[in-house]
Amino acid sequence: MKNAVGREIPEVVGGRTLRPFEGAFATRASGRKAARAQKGIGRDEEKLLPSLDAALEATGLADGMTISFHHCFRDGDALVNQVVDACARKGLRDLRLFATALFPVHKPLLEHIESGVIGRIEGSMNGPVGAFVSQGGMLRDPAVLRSHGGRWRAVEAGDVHIDVAFIAAPQADAYGNANGIHGKTPCGPITFASVDAQYADQTVVVTNDLAPYPAHPFEIQQGWTDYVVEVDEIGDPGNIASGTLQITRSPTRLRIARLAADVVVASPYFVDGFSFQGGAGGVSLATVAYLGEEMERAGIVSSFAIGGGTRFLIDLLHRGRVRTILEGQAFDIEAIRSLREDDGHVTIDPGHYANYDSRGSSTYRLDAAFLGATEVDLEFNANVNTHSDGLLLHGIGGHQDVAAGASMTIITVPALRGRLPVIVDRVTTVTTPGEVIDVIVTDRGIAVNPAREELRDRLVAAGLPVRELEEIKKEAEALTQPAGVPVFGDEIIAVIEWRDGTVIDVVRKVEGWA
Amino acid sequence: MKNAVGREIPEVVGGRTLRPFEGAFATRASGRKAARAQKGIGRDEEKLLPSLDAALEATGLADGMTISFHHCFRDGDALVNQVVDACARKGLRDLRLFATALFPVHKPLLEHIESGVIGRIEGSMNGPVGAFVSQGGMLRDPAVLRSHGGRWRAVEAGDVHIDVAFIAAPQADAYGNANGIHGKTPCGPITFASVDAQYADQTVVVTNDLAPYPAHPFEIQQGWTDYVVEVDEIGDPGNIASGTLQITRSPTRLRIARLAADVVVASPYFVDGFSFQGGAGGVSLATVAYLGEEMERAGIVSSFAIGGGTRFLIDLLHRGRVRTILEGQAFDIEAIRSLREDDGHVTIDPGHYANYDSRGSSTYRLDAAFLGATEVDLEFNANVNTHSDGLLLHGIGGHQDVAAGASMTIITVPALRGRLPVIVDRVTTVTTPGEVIDVIVTDRGIAVNPAREELRDRLVAAGLPVRELEEIKKEAEALTQPAGVPVFGDEIIAVIEWRDGTVIDVVRKVEGWA
Repeated sequence: MKNAVGREIPEVVGGRTLRPFEGAFATRASGRKAARAQKGIGRDEEKLLPSLDAALEATGLADGMTISFHHCFRDGDALVNQVVDACARKGLRDLRLFATALFPVHKPLLEHIESGVIGRIEGSMNGPVGAFVSQGGMLRDPAVLRSHGGRWRAVEAGDVHIDVAFIAAPQADAYGNANGIHGKTPCGPITFASVDAQYADQTVVVTNDLAPYPAHPFEIQQGWTDYVVEVDEIGDPGNIASGTLQITRSPTRLRIARLAADVVVASPYFVDGFSFQGGAGGVSLATVAYLGEEMERAGIVSSFAIGGGTRFLIDLLHRGRVRTILEGQAFDIEAIRSLREDDGHVTIDPGHYANYDSRGSSTYRLDAAFLGATEVDLEFNANVNTHSDGLLLHGIGGHQDVAAGASMTIITVPALRGRLPVIVDRVTTVTTPGEVIDVIVTDRGIAVNPAREELRDRLVAAGLPVRELEEIKKEAEALTQPAGVPVFGDEIIAVIEWRDGTVIDVVRKVEGWA
Repeated sequence: MKNAVGREIPEVVGGRTLRPFEGAFATRASGRKAARAQKGIGRDEEKLLPSLDAALEATGLADGMTISFHHCFRDGDALVNQVVDACARKGLRDLRLFATALFPVHKPLLEHIESGVIGRIEGSMNGPVGAFVSQGGMLRDPAVLRSHGGRWRAVEAGDVHIDVAFIAAPQADAYGNANGIHGKTPCGPITFASVDAQYADQTVVVTNDLAPYPAHPFEIQQGWTDYVVEVDEIGDPGNIASGTLQITRSPTRLRIARLAADVVVASPYFVDGFSFQGGAGGVSLATVAYLGEEMERAGIVSSFAIGGGTRFLIDLLHRGRVRTILEGQAFDIEAIRSLREDDGHVTIDPGHYANYDSRGSSTYRLDAAFLGATEVDLEFNANVNTHSDGLLLHGIGGHQDVAAGASMTIITVPALRGRLPVIVDRVTTVTTPGEVIDVIVTDRGIAVNPAREELRDRLVAAGLPVRELEEIKKEAEALTQPAGVPVFGDEIIAVIEWRDGTVIDVVRKVEGWA
């Protein structure tokens, strides 16, 4: 069957019945969410265990069960590998790994996939694990990728039942209160994991900095935490950003950022109180910096911005140009410090900012958002998961959530990456449907979704280089070099969920390149 | 059948099967909690409704349904009466009123009970509503009283299903984020209601101060909130305290407070890092003040204290004698201001501090707690619900939760109230079982629970006036005047739950006094 973006979705994959994507806001859940486990504790019972191995024993983790993790240390994470190693030592098999996201640092997992310790993965796979799975890695069932909000939704809805959540906590007390903004190696809020802690049958907080009771803020609460383990290392905050936290120096990318800021200024949204989504990545940082200058010039104050927080966003907060930052994920040390110090910098969780099955996401209150893509197509669909070589190399992050929510979603992409085209007839994978993407800003001009005629007229009137997407595409294509085209097999290696749990696309195995 | 404190508990009351109390920590829930309602919203959908009447329409509130409220304005609350009046206007009948607590200000409810608009009450009834119900008010079924933690537990467990939660919010944005510490009439945290907001089928936030998005802290979250209503008045913070916030000047009560502080100092718990529960009421305030002096003298810093926050506790925080205050309920303006300003003053919800069906309550980390009682008996049982005249005049509050949790629970009572005895053979109603009460401090001496022999020896060694409870009782009885003894009917007008959902006692109708 074909879904609403024209992708062929099988009815059943890996024993799972798929619901095809029907449109960005087409479904409305009814009935009940999953029911959380009842728990109890003796008054004098303690939770501290001496090791991860002891935690595996205490929780009774067994073959086929689901273990979960957050990715707040990103490429600096040290917990996933330690726990899966411990599972391997214990002889466990066919575990489902339900991490929010995996990074190059998790390459050692390949061995555990091959040996059958890990049988399934649900979550983003950035880099080597994705590449491996794309080429027929030995997972029993296809991976499932979800957005930040989609993952939260899936846990609450009971689509994914977590047996044991392992939560890396830069600071925790022995009773299981934990946070990510204090401690020896703060990584920013760990609220990604709060849905895990609440819905998992058992929750293990793992910390390298055991603090006196009560450790606060209570991003993770004692009432949800079954056990606490102290270890030497949970992650290296130095590898959170992986070098994406410099403003780009590329003239092409600076031009894109400049144009994106100009689009906002020319739009009807650029009035006092407007709201926007910042983010990491060189172009986004430059856009935020330009936007700050424009706000200063216009005497405008933004009511709120949604992070990933960076020093550029914090700077706007400190200068009074942004009244409130809603923060789900901090990208640098300045953002983490600000969370400790600034009243206007407020931690949220993905349930708050992005849960489809709730009475409102923060993203729905956004005026403008800036997002990237690996590819866009003439239907304005965006791909952030696969490259044009077909390999699954990135997660969804908040892409879908922010795009669906913002009144004006701007995709910033170069018309070419090296010699590869970015605007294509049909994206390799649809991550986010064109219906929620309003503007595509490239170094070779700006394209506006035909559904937004009024917006297009405003940008034209402001003298911005508005063009047809196809025109930009053709111009770029003249400069591309032929690259290997992926040859896909039949086997589905990953399912891409839309934020409501329907399937917007599937990713097939790459057999080779032609 | 008799429960573990020897009270006769019927098997069924008002169609509800009762589980008899088995001991303070005898039960352990298993299985699953209640499942929350699935919800959704359109991207551009707004929630603001023009009136409470419009909210009744929008929610589809119907006969026999359950409506819930928090009591953070206490005797200053203005919402319950407004909503029930609106229900009466709409012709609704047989509603179950599930307020955390009712106060004298809610006396107008009597009319709605008599007319059948309200058919059932679950929650504390302080004053006239309790007196009315005690004497055969026209409720269809007996009232159910629960502790703070017990109420949270009951909602999560599905014992009480809330159809519509109405939440008085001193500050809210139009998207349903709400808090109690900002706005025109701050009442302190409204986290009592966060379980209502999460588990109710529908949630209505009612505010007198609509703030720009995003209003924070997020004590109530947008994702839980179906509708927002702006009204002129939600409550008067001036009536939160009802005059209980002065240190007592009564020499008798000052002596009790002094002895309670002395008990702590002489106990093994008075070491650096010790923790205690403060509270309102003249004796508690004086105890906290004395304790502060003793901490100063001994150079001791308390790791944490649990509120009800008052200026006396805030003073200890500011002086560095208490490192952290965990706050579920603020009792004065200084406490509310401190919540806005002091990093060490941390809002918690009853789920965090007191939920039996969780992996730990903050009260379990308490060393010492000071609580009152209307009566105590020779088994060390405490009554806080009824008076010796049999009338149900008070709620449980956190009494059970704190007593069960603290390593040393101290009940402070005068040996006589006026000419009425406070120490009796058998309390009129058992609220909190003697097994979790360690010390009873009266103006005529200190009694130690026989189970705590070592503690008794320490207090004796410190030269404190330790006596047998029976001895104090007899001494007081010589001074009492005969008062009317209640004549109870058969009809059960209220069920007193222990914090695990079992029934520790029932309250019968008062037919008259003999």
